[in-house]
Amino acid sequence: MEVLRTGVIGAGRIGKIHGENIARFIPQSRLEGLADIHLGAEQEAWARGLGARIVSKEPEELLADPAIDAVIICSSTDTHADFIIAAAGAGKQVFCEKPIDLSAAKVRTALEAVKNAGVKLQIGFNRRFDHNFRRIREHTLAGEIGQVQVVKITSRDPAPPSPAYVAASGGIFIDMMIHDFDMARFQAGSEITEVYAAGAVLVDPEIGRAGDIDTAMVTLRFASGAIGVIDNSRKAVYGYDQRVEVFGSRGAALAENDLPNTVKLYTEDAVTGEKPLYFFLERYRQAFVDEMISFTESILHNKSVAVSGEDGLENMYAALAAGKSLKEKRPVLIDEVRV
Amino acid sequence: MEVLRTGVIGAGRIGKIHGENIARFIPQSRLEGLADIHLGAEQEAWARGLGARIVSKEPEELLADPAIDAVIICSSTDTHADFIIAAAGAGKQVFCEKPIDLSAAKVRTALEAVKNAGVKLQIGFNRRFDHNFRRIREHTLAGEIGQVQVVKITSRDPAPPSPAYVAASGGIFIDMMIHDFDMARFQAGSEITEVYAAGAVLVDPEIGRAGDIDTAMVTLRFASGAIGVIDNSRKAVYGYDQRVEVFGSRGAALAENDLPNTVKLYTEDAVTGEKPLYFFLERYRQAFVDEMISFTESILHNKSVAVSGEDGLENMYAALAAGKSLKEKRPVLIDEVRV
Amino acid sequence: MEVLRTGVIGAGRIGKIHGENIARFIPQSRLEGLADIHLGAEQEAWARGLGARIVSKEPEELLADPAIDAVIICSSTDTHADFIIAAAGAGKQVFCEKPIDLSAAKVRTALEAVKNAGVKLQIGFNRRFDHNFRRIREHTLAGEIGQVQVVKITSRDPAPPSPAYVAASGGIFIDMMIHDFDMARFQAGSEITEVYAAGAVLVDPEIGRAGDIDTAMVTLRFASGAIGVIDNSRKAVYGYDQRVEVFGSRGAALAENDLPNTVKLYTEDAVTGEKPLYFFLERYRQAFVDEMISFTESILHNKSVAVSGEDGLENMYAALAAGKSLKEKRPVLIDEVRV
Amino acid sequence: MEVLRTGVIGAGRIGKIHGENIARFIPQSRLEGLADIHLGAEQEAWARGLGARIVSKEPEELLADPAIDAVIICSSTDTHADFIIAAAGAGKQVFCEKPIDLSAAKVRTALEAVKNAGVKLQIGFNRRFDHNFRRIREHTLAGEIGQVQVVKITSRDPAPPSPAYVAASGGIFIDMMIHDFDMARFQAGSEITEVYAAGAVLVDPEIGRAGDIDTAMVTLRFASGAIGVIDNSRKAVYGYDQRVEVFGSRGAALAENDLPNTVKLYTEDAVTGEKPLYFFLERYRQAFVDEMISFTESILHNKSVAVSGEDGLENMYAALAAGKSLKEKRPVLIDEVRV
Repeated sequence: MEVLRTGVIGAGRIGKIHGENIARFIPQSRLEGLADIHLGAEQEAWARGLGARIVSKEPEELLADPAIDAVIICSSTDTHADFIIAAAGAGKQVFCEKPIDLSAAKVRTALEAVKNAGVKLQIGFNRRFDHNFRRIREHTLAGEIGQVQVVKITSRDPAPPSPAYVAASGGIFIDMMIHDFDMARFQAGSEITEVYAAGAVLVDPEIGRAGDIDTAMVTLRFASGAIGVIDNSRKAVYGYDQRVEVFGSRGAALAENDLPNTVKLYTEDAVTGEKPLYFFLERYRQAFVDEMISFTESILHNKSVAVSGEDGLENMYAALAAGKSLKEKRPVLIDEVRV
Repeated sequence: MEVLRTGVIGAGRIGKIHGENIARFIPQSRLEGLADIHLGAEQEAWARGLGARIVSKEPEELLADPAIDAVIICSSTDTHADFIIAAAGAGKQVFCEKPIDLSAAKVRTALEAVKNAGVKLQIGFNRRFDHNFRRIREHTLAGEIGQVQVVKITSRDPAPPSPAYVAASGGIFIDMMIHDFDMARFQAGSEITEVYAAGAVLVDPEIGRAGDIDTAMVTLRFASGAIGVIDNSRKAVYGYDQRVEVFGSRGAALAENDLPNTVKLYTEDAVTGEKPLYFFLERYRQAFVDEMISFTESILHNKSVAVSGEDGLENMYAALAAGKSLKEKRPVLIDEVRV
Repeated sequence: MEVLRTGVIGAGRIGKIHGENIARFIPQSRLEGLADIHLGAEQEAWARGLGARIVSKEPEELLADPAIDAVIICSSTDTHADFIIAAAGAGKQVFCEKPIDLSAAKVRTALEAVKNAGVKLQIGFNRRFDHNFRRIREHTLAGEIGQVQVVKITSRDPAPPSPAYVAASGGIFIDMMIHDFDMARFQAGSEITEVYAAGAVLVDPEIGRAGDIDTAMVTLRFASGAIGVIDNSRKAVYGYDQRVEVFGSRGAALAENDLPNTVKLYTEDAVTGEKPLYFFLERYRQAFVDEMISFTESILHNKSVAVSGEDGLENMYAALAAGKSLKEKRPVLIDEVRV
Repeated sequence: MEVLRTGVIGAGRIGKIHGENIARFIPQSRLEGLADIHLGAEQEAWARGLGARIVSKEPEELLADPAIDAVIICSSTDTHADFIIAAAGAGKQVFCEKPIDLSAAKVRTALEAVKNAGVKLQIGFNRRFDHNFRRIREHTLAGEIGQVQVVKITSRDPAPPSPAYVAASGGIFIDMMIHDFDMARFQAGSEITEVYAAGAVLVDPEIGRAGDIDTAMVTLRFASGAIGVIDNSRKAVYGYDQRVEVFGSRGAALAENDLPNTVKLYTEDAVTGEKPLYFFLERYRQAFVDEMISFTESILHNKSVAVSGEDGLENMYAALAAGKSLKEKRPVLIDEVRV
């Protein structure tokens, strides 16, 4: 196989990003088809413009097409597991956006199907491919940090989602911090064994009324003995705050935010520079490309995927344990929530 | 009173710092006397060279001298409370190094004595006077950060103390993190109400055998509703790591480490700069001067001290609660440890 | 006109960059044709892959095709002027790489042809579109810098070209510093009136034997009264060093280099970060896209181009004056070299 | 000799700095006397407070006192040379503020007297002792920069002096840039052989009417073959801008400005940090101490001084050549102005 022929399921924001990346920036991948149950004229034109052969309201059409090697699942979360199962059953390679499902049991069922079908499954934890965070991991792997002792992650969104979104999101741990659990496991090179979650409603009382929190501080313990902390806020007025720090026996590595430019303005009042890149579309633009290149090469060269379904499941467990910790006001072992 | 006439009790490392600062850098203060029960020739010469009139092995001599307005208690921790009580009884103003005592009950007794005597007591939490951390607080007070939501403190020493020191120290929370509890309360502008401590022995197994930990991550809740986190390590190979971050509804302020110079070296391999200033003597050199100026002015102008005995007690409670949390593996309310 | 149909002349390194940018990143532009007198199979496949309809060894074919609106001239410098004249004669809009020609007289002839034909001509001074340098200019235009008093430009290449290249290049002022003359004029918002050039052969004696210098420091005077300086080196071992500083009556703006990531590594030895992005392909990747978007929109919406043929001519004069200054060891007025 | 007994001549701003530094911060030096022809009560009290034994309106009194080893000349520039000659004649070691004199011939006469008397003379080019600039030099001496090819110095004052001061100052090259000529020679490790000066009156027309310029850009050539540039402005609204860059065959070192603290404030508008330390008293506070320590140790241990009278003379020649270059609009060899 020289080129991976892909079909994208779901033409929302993230589906379009993947579709464009596949069609424009990844020579060894091709956008063969797009399916969206709410397909509209604008989306159809977009897909055709990118060279898609099949444009349909029926995802099954992609699964049934023998000329499609892999599907990229970007539909709503509640459909992820079923599409994974169906795609695996059709012998397709699978890339699925996170989270796989809000139910860990359902995630396990989907992973079973993937395993039985012998196909590959990569989950869309794109931040592992970020140039900054990847560089920290490289330092660790090169031994420059020594034994990892502490992992610290700051992750704040520029603006909170609507209360309606929050109510359906599964909560801050599954909707937002799940990315950070993945980053923590990636940077520690070890599984999370216990979490303790402190949280508060400080940004928007509506979020509290929707049964969620908007500010969270979660302490982590890793199997390696290292400890960690993640802090999330739904609203940083200065933009998307995404920083990681890994501290160890031989050193530490810190990633600062990315800025739109390096200019500093010196005036009578102060020295002023740019705020961080606004949100994930800007900050992780290249990471989205790089995760898809990684997936493509895993298939073409029959290598392990960089972020497996099991990673998705472990991240889910951490999120569930954090929710339990917040509710029960005590540290919770990951083993308590495993199914 | 135009000049504060001070007597220093204890001529160890910190006593010498205060003595020199008083004699050289604070025109409105004078080093009138020094007392150290282990007084040696070198210390005597040092004190005489700074103009001390009384140099003695008997701290009581300083307390009995009517020409001494204030004492600076820099002796070993187990003597602090008794000297405070004696000094207050003698009508002296008191500056005392932290911690006041390892027993909260004894701290309360000392504070009672101070209160009854109507003298002032300032505790040596010097970091409040640091140029960086003070600047963050100014931003908060100016409203530029809005409502404080999250306080994050990183505090790592360049090298661990000896196991013998550790065994007598009262443990990492009282010996080391107590500074950070003070900083957290200072920056939050609110009292800590609950802590959760995770800890590990990752630096030196001897520290573990001495019954302590060397790596700690403590989650804080404040009365204001804000949350916080402090991480401590006994050993950062790159030097003294002292950073503070305050995040709020209108912005955030971050203090980076101080460096010995601003030079960047660009070579074929990398861009290289200096490590942080090595340890507290270098990093907080000016803060030690500024806390003594603040104490001096509080007395001369009859103003409240910047760091009160009650601050010392609250910091102690936080440390005790952290110890209890670590032991009992659960979040602990400060009220549980109050005496 | 909704889409600009372009033909690229010359499929070397820069021709390929423009071709790919047009085909992939600029929806309102289309790669209609490619012509290269040395066209090979690899280049033909590349152009076809990007959707080019005409792929030829005859640039005239592009000029003769009525379905081509604009040509992008990326051939060797000695052919630029003739292609501009031919393209203008054929009524095509023209984008031409810098320099237009090594002879100012020939440049003027080409500009005359463009003027007579009533077409637009944009010259490839891509750095004006750089996110950093553009931001400085925005600060100036917003009045935040006040009256511009000093412009400082540092511009160093990571490795010197071959002596053979140097011998045919027209020399460092025309080959390399011409970009900086353009940047200086752009940032000053004023024409250069006088230059003084100091130079040396410090990098490679072969460059000296080829009749050129490899290290240069050129002082500028602008019509506005501002002064400036540009320093060039053919070899900075740490990579492509591209910095600009504008200083004025109300402030200053400084652009630092771009880095591949923001990670800092703290070790026992030092704090280490990344070197600047290696060379112009990495550093100006987005600027090449943005200059082509700017050209496209100038044509589609009939606006002035951002970098005119006259800009190219003024930059050339500055380069010629610098050469004369170096040779005659005196400041040289731009008027002395105008033709 | 274990302690250097010094007498300060002149109790203006700089005299007071040196007096305080000697009395407070340099244990191996002592302030034995102060003389100021305009001595007032405030100055007398100040000197007595620092322990001065002799406080006089007669500098000759210091020179005549056998218990004074060295004099620190901080009087007005026009008296420097005479005091050097008298002090040397009296066998005193000499530290003299810059410039030695506005006349190079007179400087030479003073240096002759010093040589004949066999005493040491250090000139107050304090910036060589700056922690940042010294660090660059260390990198060069350690071979980390390779052969020095380019030296760039930015030096801007926060506010212009009065036109009256300007008129008596000897002009920007002697009054202000002389520090930068010294820095350039120090960093290049080589003598300046030629300068070209461009200048303008952009800050204050009064300065122009006083016969001076307020903005200058001076190109340097060094005996080593390296080239350099210095830019001066009498007014940077954001404060004292003092930066140095040394570029060579193996790398480059850059010193940024010092800031009062490291805090960054992130708001909805921008990321804001502090302006540079305001002026030379703040920025070079420690450098003033360190130059005096260096002088003291040179005498006590009979070592060469770090900044000699010959350095002062070479700096003067560079300043004179720059003035000539500005006037004659051509590069000027240092040899043209030597006397």
